[in-house]
Amino acid sequence: MITGKNFIGNKLSAKGTDTHKTFNPKLNVENSFDFHAATLEEVDEAVQLASQAFKEYRKISGKKRSEFLNAIADEILALGDELVQTYMSESGLPEGRAIGERGRTIFQLQSFANLVASENWKQNTIDEAIPNRLPIPKDDIRKTSIPLGPVVVFAASNFPLAFSTAGGDTASALASGCPVIVKSHSMHSGTGELVASAIIKAAEKTGMPNGVFSNITGSGRIVGVALVKHPKVKAVGFTGSISGGRALFDIAAKRPEPIPVFAEMGSINPVIITENSIAKKSAEIASTYAGSITMGTGQFCTNPGLILTIENENTNEFIKDLAEKATAIAPQCMLHPNIKRDFVSNGASVSSQSGVEVVAVIEEEIEANFAPTQVSTVSGTDFLTNPKMHQEVFGPFSLVVRCKNEAQLVEVIEGLEGQLTGTILAEEEDYANLSEIVDALQNRVGRIIFNGVPTGVEVCESMTHGGPYPASSDSRFTAVGVGAIKRWVRPFSFQDFPKELLPQSLI
Amino acid sequence: MITGKNFIGNKLSAKGTDTHKTFNPKLNVENSFDFHAATLEEVDEAVQLASQAFKEYRKISGKKRSEFLNAIADEILALGDELVQTYMSESGLPEGRAIGERGRTIFQLQSFANLVASENWKQNTIDEAIPNRLPIPKDDIRKTSIPLGPVVVFAASNFPLAFSTAGGDTASALASGCPVIVKSHSMHSGTGELVASAIIKAAEKTGMPNGVFSNITGSGRIVGVALVKHPKVKAVGFTGSISGGRALFDIAAKRPEPIPVFAEMGSINPVIITENSIAKKSAEIASTYAGSITMGTGQFCTNPGLILTIENENTNEFIKDLAEKATAIAPQCMLHPNIKRDFVSNGASVSSQSGVEVVAVIEEEIEANFAPTQVSTVSGTDFLTNPKMHQEVFGPFSLVVRCKNEAQLVEVIEGLEGQLTGTILAEEEDYANLSEIVDALQNRVGRIIFNGVPTGVEVCESMTHGGPYPASSDSRFTAVGVGAIKRWVRPFSFQDFPKELLPQSLI
Repeated sequence: MITGKNFIGNKLSAKGTDTHKTFNPKLNVENSFDFHAATLEEVDEAVQLASQAFKEYRKISGKKRSEFLNAIADEILALGDELVQTYMSESGLPEGRAIGERGRTIFQLQSFANLVASENWKQNTIDEAIPNRLPIPKDDIRKTSIPLGPVVVFAASNFPLAFSTAGGDTASALASGCPVIVKSHSMHSGTGELVASAIIKAAEKTGMPNGVFSNITGSGRIVGVALVKHPKVKAVGFTGSISGGRALFDIAAKRPEPIPVFAEMGSINPVIITENSIAKKSAEIASTYAGSITMGTGQFCTNPGLILTIENENTNEFIKDLAEKATAIAPQCMLHPNIKRDFVSNGASVSSQSGVEVVAVIEEEIEANFAPTQVSTVSGTDFLTNPKMHQEVFGPFSLVVRCKNEAQLVEVIEGLEGQLTGTILAEEEDYANLSEIVDALQNRVGRIIFNGVPTGVEVCESMTHGGPYPASSDSRFTAVGVGAIKRWVRPFSFQDFPKELLPQSLI
Repeated sequence: MITGKNFIGNKLSAKGTDTHKTFNPKLNVENSFDFHAATLEEVDEAVQLASQAFKEYRKISGKKRSEFLNAIADEILALGDELVQTYMSESGLPEGRAIGERGRTIFQLQSFANLVASENWKQNTIDEAIPNRLPIPKDDIRKTSIPLGPVVVFAASNFPLAFSTAGGDTASALASGCPVIVKSHSMHSGTGELVASAIIKAAEKTGMPNGVFSNITGSGRIVGVALVKHPKVKAVGFTGSISGGRALFDIAAKRPEPIPVFAEMGSINPVIITENSIAKKSAEIASTYAGSITMGTGQFCTNPGLILTIENENTNEFIKDLAEKATAIAPQCMLHPNIKRDFVSNGASVSSQSGVEVVAVIEEEIEANFAPTQVSTVSGTDFLTNPKMHQEVFGPFSLVVRCKNEAQLVEVIEGLEGQLTGTILAEEEDYANLSEIVDALQNRVGRIIFNGVPTGVEVCESMTHGGPYPASSDSRFTAVGVGAIKRWVRPFSFQDFPKELLPQSLI
């Protein structure tokens, strides 16, 4: 049941008078619930509780934390249709996506539950003493990983479940032994509250300390800024825009005690298509990429926003085919009127740059918050002169660059900002000549996909979801896959400790 | 041979007119060489060369990089007595220390050479494809670690070899595949140039690209700031003061593309001594700690600057004994007149706080740059009211806190800033009651030593040299031990790559 209140630990609380409603973009109407922004007093209360809970929670065994995570998964499923309906009403996304994303969320929670049920993830090492070493004896030193402290997680607009309240950031931080305070996303506060209630139920059922989780609401910046500035918060997870992520990064860096911010931000995910690939598979690639560009209304961080080709006699036909196929796909609803507004204005901004030509755009009248898919094109020479064309257009948009040769294509890649992904579409006869492209791309991205699409981020150990700035604020970590737990822990060494006092896993 | 010039890649260069000399603190005279501060043009040239070299260096095999690191070690040894004499003349440290630190430096280089001779350190993982998985097939995803790009290393004042030109930061960054630009420490520019010449020789002998290493001189902030601001620099390593490290951190965080700064900064390394321990081993502990406080003239980042006791009938006698034994050790030379000046003023600042009593200090006339060892004491109640007593006094100084009971001792620990180390001196009968102290300490430090001294940092896999801020700027990494390589790399994934194009170690 949605109450519109914050969870300060396991207590519902609504001391504030500022309220906001969420919006149903498909029906183009406000939803009915009033959500109470947390007061600064409530923010402080949540952090103090988290800090208190940390003393106990960091010592709870991995096995118990694993039970907690599995219980969260169960309680989310137990929310049943209310969660699915709320999700749809607050995002405009279809039922299949709601159920699929819930499945992904549950899988993530269970993956981290499996991970921390044993101690292997801590990468413990033991260097035994060498008492007779010369010139001085070697001490016994044993290393493990320990949690940083309370983590603030900012929910993402585009994944109301999998990158939000109980998403990958929350699951990995709770798994590591860090209490979590979620700043709920104001576009889907109802979905957020339902999931928060599931986490609180799971915490109570599995005997976790009060304060291990809180859910904080607020539609402006005040609440989020207060959370990041709070001296007892020790790390931040964020998924969203470059401007939002950078603002939090700057606040965290200016604290008396700076704290790490793991922000997964913008990406245009360049796709390189070789001449051989277009020559052989033009129609197939156009169909596949029409699907990838419009998938989820283009609202994925791995959406292919930039396609790099080498201009020859086949290029124009390919671009036309891609644009027609993309705009032939029925337009879909965006997350919120503001997202639609930004999509239209950012798309227009890129397409109005000198040399950019709109190849196709849905121009017929469409429903209020639905997205008019757009494909534009520009020459490599023009692209190289104007970094405004690098900006992310969040939604079903792609810019196809026609490079005059491979050298220019490599120059384009080298001039890009950091990206989550890069994709190469190539034929076997290209393999011998791809090393320059692979090298240049590798230095700009976190993951390269071969003959596939960047959309779809597998949750597995080998996944890297992150990349050089501004794809993420710290490329040394991944936001997806079990490796995400490393963001919230630090190495710790015991020197010459008696066995009686060592953790079991270090003996 | 010392020339007083910068190494811009493998070329000696001295375009600037600003010069400085180093200082022999033992003789209390300037050394003869003039060192030319790099111009901003030379700084840019070094970074451009490094960026160019990175394209090739990141693809050079671990085996070849291993040969390079081993060759550096050999060339440093080949510098022979000139290096030892220069080291002594620029630091006031004795010959035994020079030779010992050279050994440590060589061991570090060889450790990283061993590490990267195989690919294990990259923590490669492979998730094979599951083409028939439902509802969608699983892609083949393989993860490895790749280097960030050119790294700037700031040499430390207190370890002219092991934490300087070819110290742990340089060795780990070169091992990872990152070119290195060292900002030489102006107190030991001659030692720095000699070591730099060894690195350049080794690079040439093993066929490394020009620009893989540069050595930049300058006595003020200008050169260092320009290096950290340069857009082609991708990470920074620093060992030194909190103010210096924080200044670099702030500059790096404000860049259009923020970069990671790994700064190992201040620490007072609390030592907890239980009542049982003092009751049984008072004299022995006093002797051991008199040695640890004065070791290397107290100029170690792990120097025990804070000793926490519980006040009872034995405490005063222990403190008196410790102070007398520490001040009975012959005073030793400090690194530089400025270091001596700061030691005296910081020691006086702590000792002048309300409630602090100087137990013993060397008051007789000593040589110009020698350190007057000092031990002071204060009650736990006074300590808790005044954070000025937490400040690091770099040199042979320790403050003994007399807590009224264990609860107050835990409160003191919880109120401390982050530390590199904590030490517990305890007897077997204490083990059952130590958990609160261990927990509190673990949350404030990177390493706990049991019944030992914090000075002496073993170079091994299980070492953590780092800790919560301000011990280091990013507690998620260690600066000592082979784990230090993780600071300079990021995870990278290949998705559905043909075997022909995968790195050998991922097949």
